[in-house]
Amino acid sequence: MLAEKKEFVEEVLSFWDALDKNQKNFVLEKLSERSWKKGQIIHSGEDCTGLLMVKSGQIRSFILSESGKEITLFRLFDGDACILSSSCVMRNITFDIHLEAEKDCDILIMPAPVFKQLSDANPAVKDFQTELVSARLSDVMWVMEQVVFMSMDRRLADFLLEQASIEGTDELSITHETIARNLGTAREVVTRMLKYFQDEGMVTLKRGKVILTNRKKLMYFTQ
Amino acid sequence: MLAEKKEFVEEVLSFWDALDKNQKNFVLEKLSERSWKKGQIIHSGEDCTGLLMVKSGQIRSFILSESGKEITLFRLFDGDACILSSSCVMRNITFDIHLEAEKDCDILIMPAPVFKQLSDANPAVKDFQTELVSARLSDVMWVMEQVVFMSMDRRLADFLLEQASIEGTDELSITHETIARNLGTAREVVTRMLKYFQDEGMVTLKRGKVILTNRKKLMYFTQ
Repeated sequence: MLAEKKEFVEEVLSFWDALDKNQKNFVLEKLSERSWKKGQIIHSGEDCTGLLMVKSGQIRSFILSESGKEITLFRLFDGDACILSSSCVMRNITFDIHLEAEKDCDILIMPAPVFKQLSDANPAVKDFQTELVSARLSDVMWVMEQVVFMSMDRRLADFLLEQASIEGTDELSITHETIARNLGTAREVVTRMLKYFQDEGMVTLKRGKVILTNRKKLMYFTQ
Repeated sequence: MLAEKKEFVEEVLSFWDALDKNQKNFVLEKLSERSWKKGQIIHSGEDCTGLLMVKSGQIRSFILSESGKEITLFRLFDGDACILSSSCVMRNITFDIHLEAEKDCDILIMPAPVFKQLSDANPAVKDFQTELVSARLSDVMWVMEQVVFMSMDRRLADFLLEQASIEGTDELSITHETIARNLGTAREVVTRMLKYFQDEGMVTLKRGKVILTNRKKLMYFTQ
């Protein structure tokens, strides 16, 4: 159990080799493991959950407006780490993200104060932190470019193809409401556009399902 | 001259006290100073300009779509530093930003390799870097929330009030085209909305000018 945990963090934490024996034991002692079911909220707004490491599952990160509107920022898969969930120990992070389990998740958590202690003692941990924050900044910039520069029809085509690739199937069990939340738009907009896609022969719509019937045409649409 | 330069970087670079004497001299030797006129491009896309420190002036940072559409990300004022202009020495930064002088600018530049050398040798420099990247991520998240969650009329009111505060005047010399570029929308949208604002008595429009005539009502509008 401990050996398995050790192997996992060695892989995820690029700074592992730079820790001394005491620090390694300290980390392994302080790590806790938790599971979340699909659909549950893992981290919400101002919580200071700590550094999250995904052992298995899939997490969606999003921001939430006062009126309840969402937009997806990035996703975390097996072996990914998230530092924005411990913003309490990071200076200059002034926004709140939310994390939701998109599939059943097993997650290792390093408490925020433990991460801070490591980071204060070890430049390699600071590098890890900078690289994670930079990666998220790049993700968010990408989303913003999509939102600002790309028309909604291209974003929808892109989203469907991405989901099909993540799920490994062309038959997506997803509601128009969920798609709308992911794209930060209204359900009506998505429904109208999906009907257009159906008329064009790119998808077939069934209750609670979107089936991709012409990937090539959809891909052409995203260019 | 050197004393003045030293005083300035001491203030801007939070890690200055953590450098030893040799490192301080090394930095001061390698710094160069350049000026840009209002409207000139300071940094463009994939350039690796280095760490910029604004002695005086005002810089607008923006991203650019293939079709030439822009969106403003953040602004830099006296004493601000920008690290995203040396993304070549940073891992995981996969986007390109552009920097434009909004006023005549005097800028001190630390070449990217010099910054990297300091950062490799000194944890305090890594902290500085993480804090800068985190601050920019927060800026970008704020812009995204604006773009995604806020209606265009609120954003326009917000923008006019911000400009008036930056310029220190209610008489803004700005074209509809420039406003549209800042908000990432079309000129027609801005013109239509400004006319509505004018009808509501919040602004007066003149050739190349927008004059704020009812700040209180405009502020009410942003809430």
